Amino acid sequence: MSDEVGRAFVPGHITGFFSIHEDDDPERAGSRGAGLTLSEGVTVTVEPAAETSIDLNGEFAAVESGRRVLDDLDLTARISAETTLPLGAGFGISGALALGTAFAANDVFGGGRSENELVTIAHGAEVEAGTGLGDVVAQARGGIPIRLEPGAPAHNRLDGVPTRANIEYLSLGELSTAEVLSGSTTRLSEAGVEALVALVNEPTMETFMEQSNEFAERAELLTDEVRDVIEDVHDEGGQASMAMLGKTVFALDSGLSDAGYDANACRTHHAGATLIE
Amino acid sequence: MSDEVGRAFVPGHITGFFSIHEDDDPERAGSRGAGLTLSEGVTVTVEPAAETSIDLNGEFAAVESGRRVLDDLDLTARISAETTLPLGAGFGISGALALGTAFAANDVFGGGRSENELVTIAHGAEVEAGTGLGDVVAQARGGIPIRLEPGAPAHNRLDGVPTRANIEYLSLGELSTAEVLSGSTTRLSEAGVEALVALVNEPTMETFMEQSNEFAERAELLTDEVRDVIEDVHDEGGQASMAMLGKTVFALDSGLSDAGYDANACRTHHAGATLIE
Repeated sequence: MSDEVGRAFVPGHITGFFSIHEDDDPERAGSRGAGLTLSEGVTVTVEPAAETSIDLNGEFAAVESGRRVLDDLDLTARISAETTLPLGAGFGISGALALGTAFAANDVFGGGRSENELVTIAHGAEVEAGTGLGDVVAQARGGIPIRLEPGAPAHNRLDGVPTRANIEYLSLGELSTAEVLSGSTTRLSEAGVEALVALVNEPTMETFMEQSNEFAERAELLTDEVRDVIEDVHDEGGQASMAMLGKTVFALDSGLSDAGYDANACRTHHAGATLIE
Repeated sequence: MSDEVGRAFVPGHITGFFSIHEDDDPERAGSRGAGLTLSEGVTVTVEPAAETSIDLNGEFAAVESGRRVLDDLDLTARISAETTLPLGAGFGISGALALGTAFAANDVFGGGRSENELVTIAHGAEVEAGTGLGDVVAQARGGIPIRLEPGAPAHNRLDGVPTRANIEYLSLGELSTAEVLSGSTTRLSEAGVEALVALVNEPTMETFMEQSNEFAERAELLTDEVRDVIEDVHDEGGQASMAMLGKTVFALDSGLSDAGYDANACRTHHAGATLIE
């Protein structure tokens, strides 16, 4: 609403399982699956400028998805993003930066786009940058999104698990989404669709955690280190799985602390991306 | 998440304009249009009980939509709802009660339904009770919902105006939704569709307020008293219109106060219905 800067908050998003749906049209490309949006996320500030620049936590950042959003809107601006979440670790940072840029830029420049149009631009930018397939639409929705059909709002179909939860996470390092997505993903997508069918049949947090575990095993994405942490949580009676795609373990409630890890705590988020003051 | 009571918050919803879409199937019946979800709303607590009862602000209330939701879920429970919003004045109280009951009951009884399923049940209950056509799906979404296609989630299509606003409201009394909906609504629906086309073309708050005004005039729903208040706000340079359907004036920012009225203040809400603790 200000004339000088636009600012948006976008929740972080941990994907529990997914299947890949390629399409030449970035509005139809995307993923099915399910995840958790988080009370921690990315705050994006957009300020008109002669040349586009992006910084993340005060440092120069070449986040292609954010740059593509501004290009699509035919704008140049200074984008400043802040997050408490780890980078490159499966929290949907690039999706959040794209979506936050779209919302904040539309606000400060008076672009007159609808929310669906802004989500579509951010989703397309993320798909074309190769940094994500389903984070943007999940982050626009909030809650515990189930992505029934892939793509941007004109094509996708979303539902949600009607609950809230305390979440802990522990990040063990980066994992390149682009690299995983460029490898063979047939097995991954089969496992993702099966997990989705199970969750649709019983849309509860328990099923989400179980199916996320099944998926991580079957898609062969678990590193030994991540597997060890998850098993430690399970040994203490907790529920945990791996964030897709990152070397990150997430757990319900105090699952990681109970297993002796020094984890970060947050909650699932009740809202999607929104402008803030 | 508790075993003993379930509790949900559902934002209030002021409709600015709408068109009516009848269908024998309550999941397909509904309205197109646009409105504002509000930071004030209804908190619904559901507690298992041998017989269903409903009270609203501590008094017995025969809210048919809420009872129908429990019947559809094949449950009996004590529903207690609290709201700071005026009743019967165009704030979507019965929709909120239906939706909050669905979310809270699913939580406390472990019903295992998805969010879309719960919204569908609440929407159908509201349509069958004759108390609303579009509030439930708007209240499930949050923000400033544009209802592009009518009906429950399997059929409808929603978008939103990507902004937030401070809102004032002044209620001058009750107006029966059921009564207006049972009269001739051809002119109303024509005006509603034209307003929607204009808002889709330019999805901004300014257009929403302009089109709400146009609609109120053209649908011939303005009472003299409501019209006078709106004109007073306009005379002071503010923007105001009538809540559909209630004898309620809503204004942007301090529009009503600036015109000398003792109005209530709230904000648009950034989230849809959600469980609370």
